[in-house]
Amino acid sequence: MELRHKNLLGIEDLSPEEISLILETASSMKEVSSRDIKKVPTLRGKTVINLFFEPSTRTRTSFEIAGKRLSADVINISSSSSSVVKGETLEDTGKNLQAMNPDLIVVRHPSPGAPHILARTLNASIINAGDGAHEHPTQALLDAYTIQEKKGKLQGLTVTIVGDITHSRVARSNIFLLKKMGAIVRVSGPRTMVPPFIESLGVTYVPELREAIRDTDVIMMLRIQLERQNQSFFPSIREYARCFGLSLPMLEHARKDVVIMHPGPVNRGVELSPEVLNAPYTIILDQVANGVAVRMALMYLLIGR
Amino acid sequence: MELRHKNLLGIEDLSPEEISLILETASSMKEVSSRDIKKVPTLRGKTVINLFFEPSTRTRTSFEIAGKRLSADVINISSSSSSVVKGETLEDTGKNLQAMNPDLIVVRHPSPGAPHILARTLNASIINAGDGAHEHPTQALLDAYTIQEKKGKLQGLTVTIVGDITHSRVARSNIFLLKKMGAIVRVSGPRTMVPPFIESLGVTYVPELREAIRDTDVIMMLRIQLERQNQSFFPSIREYARCFGLSLPMLEHARKDVVIMHPGPVNRGVELSPEVLNAPYTIILDQVANGVAVRMALMYLLIGR
Amino acid sequence: MELRHKNLLGIEDLSPEEISLILETASSMKEVSSRDIKKVPTLRGKTVINLFFEPSTRTRTSFEIAGKRLSADVINISSSSSSVVKGETLEDTGKNLQAMNPDLIVVRHPSPGAPHILARTLNASIINAGDGAHEHPTQALLDAYTIQEKKGKLQGLTVTIVGDITHSRVARSNIFLLKKMGAIVRVSGPRTMVPPFIESLGVTYVPELREAIRDTDVIMMLRIQLERQNQSFFPSIREYARCFGLSLPMLEHARKDVVIMHPGPVNRGVELSPEVLNAPYTIILDQVANGVAVRMALMYLLIGR
Repeated sequence: MELRHKNLLGIEDLSPEEISLILETASSMKEVSSRDIKKVPTLRGKTVINLFFEPSTRTRTSFEIAGKRLSADVINISSSSSSVVKGETLEDTGKNLQAMNPDLIVVRHPSPGAPHILARTLNASIINAGDGAHEHPTQALLDAYTIQEKKGKLQGLTVTIVGDITHSRVARSNIFLLKKMGAIVRVSGPRTMVPPFIESLGVTYVPELREAIRDTDVIMMLRIQLERQNQSFFPSIREYARCFGLSLPMLEHARKDVVIMHPGPVNRGVELSPEVLNAPYTIILDQVANGVAVRMALMYLLIGR
Repeated sequence: MELRHKNLLGIEDLSPEEISLILETASSMKEVSSRDIKKVPTLRGKTVINLFFEPSTRTRTSFEIAGKRLSADVINISSSSSSVVKGETLEDTGKNLQAMNPDLIVVRHPSPGAPHILARTLNASIINAGDGAHEHPTQALLDAYTIQEKKGKLQGLTVTIVGDITHSRVARSNIFLLKKMGAIVRVSGPRTMVPPFIESLGVTYVPELREAIRDTDVIMMLRIQLERQNQSFFPSIREYARCFGLSLPMLEHARKDVVIMHPGPVNRGVELSPEVLNAPYTIILDQVANGVAVRMALMYLLIGR
Repeated sequence: MELRHKNLLGIEDLSPEEISLILETASSMKEVSSRDIKKVPTLRGKTVINLFFEPSTRTRTSFEIAGKRLSADVINISSSSSSVVKGETLEDTGKNLQAMNPDLIVVRHPSPGAPHILARTLNASIINAGDGAHEHPTQALLDAYTIQEKKGKLQGLTVTIVGDITHSRVARSNIFLLKKMGAIVRVSGPRTMVPPFIESLGVTYVPELREAIRDTDVIMMLRIQLERQNQSFFPSIREYARCFGLSLPMLEHARKDVVIMHPGPVNRGVELSPEVLNAPYTIILDQVANGVAVRMALMYLLIGR
């Protein structure tokens, strides 16, 4: 089987079979990163551009390592140094990069749809590394890989996503993916942070966290954007942490075998208490490790054959 | 034949034969970028430093891709992170880099002559990637390559350069190159932006754009530095665009087979109207593509043999 | 013999035998950088992360070149783009990087002990590239290599360190190393810049520079942090330069065969007069060249076998 797409713009475009293909490919890629010599020649002579209009060390580093372990030439471009400063349109930036004949452009952008604009005009493959509040498909794929690794499957699991659902591309991509793969999805968080139409996506909104985490297989905590809290959607960080943070007492309402995820970086003591952050059922670092594998898999599937 | 120089500091130093050699070499390098595996081992084990004291994503990326496709180790240093902040002289910075034994330093600097200072003291080859208002020789070479690709020759062509001639290193390098190769050069732009001595370079100043583009083979538009317009050399951007921007009506004064160039990034609606920007006779993206090939050629000629 | 350590955190942890091993290994690495093809496959498939929380072009470039000449994949992360901005703890940053399975993390940090925190939690090897006013072990090792190269030995030599001893990690690491290797160490500088306990480290404080440099084999000048001089430890830069700068007249008090070192970047006319800076006995560029060799040696010893 092959990926029918030139690009990975969002989970919304993928079939369950394609998602399975990506996860299976990630499995063999993960083995590469565990070797003593963590390098295969798969993408030798391919040019990968990391085009980041928002800072994100973690995601950029993950893609850079993924590309280099596949032997691609990786070029980093960040918005601060980008000629976007000089008032060029995104499409013009893209066309200029295309002229240098890259095989793949990984793009992160604050505006929803930015990767789609590039995909429409360029020959290079595009991976969406996060576009505004729209999608963050590689995050959802690495989350799915991690859940499958821990629980053996996605089908039939209950996953509870907690936090600012409205502004989260991570939530959106995960909801799309989990629903496609047959999981049951609940969301929780302050009413001001959950879009009114949310149930139309086939998920249940459970306002009280203690109810939301009852009998769920996976809890996925979202990051609170502290830096945006002038538009405050809740009275205070403390209030938020008390109502929607995971602490040991709160976790007594959850199953013993629950696993806890977070896309990072964690606000310690806000989304997760320090005890929960360091507990064995908290699998955030597995997510990070699997991120490299999933990104290697996507690079291979999109431009490696 | 060989390049007799250790460095590429300016077009002024090159003979017509050397220019031809560079353009021919670029031709075979261009083929590399069109392969499925865009990599040759030519510069394996060579160290190339991109030393940029002015931001320029495009030029830095072009050199970085060129170096990597030739298998060189490429190191990026930008002024923001540079120890120049700490008050070191350029010569000291250069000597320190030299101590790490690089083969080539690509330098962009706001001061005219900066690459020459490095060239005088260092063993490494130096490529001038733009020094103040002085020269930008790789731009002129990629422009020449592109003209030759489209028109089959340089000799005898008429090329019209439009814009801020006084402050443009692109204009200077192009004038030197085109004159050496036997082209006829006209310049146009506001009188405040054309140096008084300009005719001594063997070019003609034609104040009215509609006259300047009449019966010319190539129109080369220069970028207006909007960010510098506090020192305004013309009443308003709108005024500039109306008098010296290329629009479809203005182009009716030009030949049908004219080609239009721009060093980028374009101010849409200022130097070029959107219709002209997207027209098939506008060959800006060819310029960008050829930039990689010309830079590969120079790296090969300077340090690859 | 092998290095018994997973990490290089400070000179304080090294035995004289280990120091000798590093210096011998550097010797064969230096040869690599003098070849036409400056690359060996030693670290192919290894991932090296440069994690810099303080800007330092020179040190970062030296490590990057060292890693690339050993064929490692090198990833640069600088604090400005780091998620530390988002309020993550250093330990969390480290664990997240570890999850991507790097072999080595080179860390520079304004806080003393930062590399030790990483070393305690991570599987990757850690090299301290400078932590606050604590240690800068690779600088001391490259200094030792350079002294040995010029003087044939370390044992029994007299080395005078001049400047802001209190705030200098370079001074601390050098004092530790030189004492371990049997050198005699003097320090000089304004009394306000020398810690009261200094003699307990086995060094002598000589307040007058002319006395301090008398009959010494090596003078090591420290950089004055001009950018910190709001907390002024001396009346003016001029005053400092006059009392503790090396000029030709001052050097008449030193031996003919003295060598002068400086970790760079030099404040011309402050620590060293321009004449002294350019004199043949001033071996700053040897230090820089040897920096690449010493860092290659450490990478090889820590992760290359």
